[in-house]
Amino acid sequence: MTGWLDALESLASSRAKAGLTRRLRPRSPGDPVVDLAGNDYLGLAAHPAVIEASAQSLRAYGLGATGSRLVRGSAAAHAELESELAAWLGAESALVFSSGYLANLAAVRSLTAVCDLIVSDAYNHASLIDGCKISGVRTVVAPHNSPAAVAALLDAHPGRALVVTESVFSVDGDLAPLAELHAVTSARGALLLVDDAHALGLLGPSGAGGVSAAGLAGHSDVVVTATLSKSLGGAGGVVAGPAQFTRHLIDTGRTFIYDTALPPAVAAGVHEALRLARSADDRRSVLASRAAQTVSRLSAAGFEVSPPVAGVLSVLAPGPEAALAWAEDCRDRGVAVGCFRPPSTPDGSSRLRLTLNAGVSDADFARALDVIVECSP
Amino acid sequence: MTGWLDALESLASSRAKAGLTRRLRPRSPGDPVVDLAGNDYLGLAAHPAVIEASAQSLRAYGLGATGSRLVRGSAAAHAELESELAAWLGAESALVFSSGYLANLAAVRSLTAVCDLIVSDAYNHASLIDGCKISGVRTVVAPHNSPAAVAALLDAHPGRALVVTESVFSVDGDLAPLAELHAVTSARGALLLVDDAHALGLLGPSGAGGVSAAGLAGHSDVVVTATLSKSLGGAGGVVAGPAQFTRHLIDTGRTFIYDTALPPAVAAGVHEALRLARSADDRRSVLASRAAQTVSRLSAAGFEVSPPVAGVLSVLAPGPEAALAWAEDCRDRGVAVGCFRPPSTPDGSSRLRLTLNAGVSDADFARALDVIVECSP
Ligand SMILES: Cc1ncc(COP(=O)(O)O)c(C=O)c1O
Ligand SMILES: Cc1ncc(COP(=O)(O)O)c(C=O)c1O
Repeated sequence: MTGWLDALESLASSRAKAGLTRRLRPRSPGDPVVDLAGNDYLGLAAHPAVIEASAQSLRAYGLGATGSRLVRGSAAAHAELESELAAWLGAESALVFSSGYLANLAAVRSLTAVCDLIVSDAYNHASLIDGCKISGVRTVVAPHNSPAAVAALLDAHPGRALVVTESVFSVDGDLAPLAELHAVTSARGALLLVDDAHALGLLGPSGAGGVSAAGLAGHSDVVVTATLSKSLGGAGGVVAGPAQFTRHLIDTGRTFIYDTALPPAVAAGVHEALRLARSADDRRSVLASRAAQTVSRLSAAGFEVSPPVAGVLSVLAPGPEAALAWAEDCRDRGVAVGCFRPPSTPDGSSRLRLTLNAGVSDADFARALDVIVECSP
Repeated sequence: MTGWLDALESLASSRAKAGLTRRLRPRSPGDPVVDLAGNDYLGLAAHPAVIEASAQSLRAYGLGATGSRLVRGSAAAHAELESELAAWLGAESALVFSSGYLANLAAVRSLTAVCDLIVSDAYNHASLIDGCKISGVRTVVAPHNSPAAVAALLDAHPGRALVVTESVFSVDGDLAPLAELHAVTSARGALLLVDDAHALGLLGPSGAGGVSAAGLAGHSDVVVTATLSKSLGGAGGVVAGPAQFTRHLIDTGRTFIYDTALPPAVAAGVHEALRLARSADDRRSVLASRAAQTVSRLSAAGFEVSPPVAGVLSVLAPGPEAALAWAEDCRDRGVAVGCFRPPSTPDGSSRLRLTLNAGVSDADFARALDVIVECSP
């Protein structure tokens, strides 16, 4: 048996050979980089009203929640945020978690109290995949965005099944056929869980998300999850659905019960961001025109890009090293873009992942597109 | 097949019959309750310097981290906190997560890249248990705090094993025999993972935790995890150990890669709390004398209580309803205590869980003990 550190070294050198080493690059306050990499789509993370609301709550409550939501962790800030989230999403009830990751683990696992098969989209986020795994329930991976394949899997299963999907997928930014999926699930008595992380604030009436946009808000056989860290500019996660389900999560959701609550000051900041996001049609139209601008600039330069439905799009790179070099060249020229390599890509390819951000100025945005094209491999 | 909401209703009514319904009780700013329920052991969550450091960082960075640590989420605030944590814990390297829960999932799962058996203490926290489960690696539950049982399990296993324990256990507050456990693991080439959540800030030189107190800091076959939400008064989690291991987590840790980073302002507040905690021997001695005071007051009233080694102790209740009524009566009289019922208790019993908090005044503390005795069933 070699030492464990030697074993880790040899794993690290295999990753290095495959171009898969990661590096953290901490940014400083006032970092002048143009951000096409973060998920602050509406540019609310640094909005003065958001900061002010959070700072006030920080003074009122202190820094942390000091305990689980079930012990000392629940503050009025959480309860108020939860009612606003439920109202926005058109759900009967909403429950806030300390992260979207933990919200997904709880939602998937808790739904398997009443389901004995999970059908999971092939491109689902790691947190959904982990939720399936930790539930211990038989999970079948369905081909990406294929309601017909889902229907066939459900038809072959006698019990109640749970179908799990994102609305806007996190790497390529494409949209799931939610209405078709729901037609399939509801006709078969199955439940539909939609992770609306990348659509919340962007799609639907008042930015209420992909589930709302598809006309599925408030359906009793649909559960929605989301993170509060993207268009709402904060941190935390939410599960929204029928009151019986959030009740079930409060009583049995392990990642709700055994986890310290989201800091009240973060909940308060997110609450203010939510108020702004609901009426941010102006910001949403900036994003829509930037989506078009990006597609036309990149297509003209010879790249194949699909028009983004929300704020994410990706551009294929020849390989992991090329993707990394491309992203680093952009950053050296003041533009942050995402570089996604395996295992962070659903299909094993490497790409730049661009996110649109309404907080970036028009001039910076146009320059950023130029830089991306000029740095391409 | 009954509807899923009916199925949930029937689960809810079984829980209600067993006295296991939970209720959230949001607190308001300036809540006058004496807190013997939260985990803010050193009373730092609302310390003015902590609030100020966090508020400043909030203005500098905005509310959320806007992305994964690997994309846009890493700020100087995280990097600075990580070096201070490593220095405090005496570890080569430390990595901050958005919660202790996600830190534990990553640590356990990533260690199984080089281990093929997990030996997990019977009283381990849910996040450790879930880490074992999600790793997919064979897990054997060892009797609580039994180095001899761990030794026997390791002796029967030819490969490299991982032994997982807490230092101070979260429900009863008892201490694991860390030095003995390490003697057992190191003699057999096994790794030891210690969740120091409830000892950090309380035990060891400068409050460096249970691992330090046991003389195991910096050992190359020991990995430490902790939450930043208890004695550090904030939120987030940390994994500390050899640099090769944190490197491995950066490249492969799913709950590190696919999760939005801790808000920089929370990292900054925790960093200030850490500075205060290192030199808080005065607060630690307040806790020690309160531990003694609690044991003598409760024993005199006829309760069996073990002297707490850190800040947690528990008092058995006759059953779940009695525990709940006891806790609610205390709260009605202005004292918050934890009420732990199955499934939150390792042995299926129900109890009050008391936490000591250096931020509570002497008079309030003495009155709280009186209230607990007077409300007992
Ligand atoms: C689709 C999706 N779901 C869930 C998450 C996890 O949310 P959080 O970062 O709040 O843990 C993310 C990203 O982080 C995501 O992209
Ligand atoms: C022993 C132990 N480990 C891990 C955790 C999880 O940490 P967090 O609340 O930061 O998720 C907790 C409590 O919350 C705990 O008590």
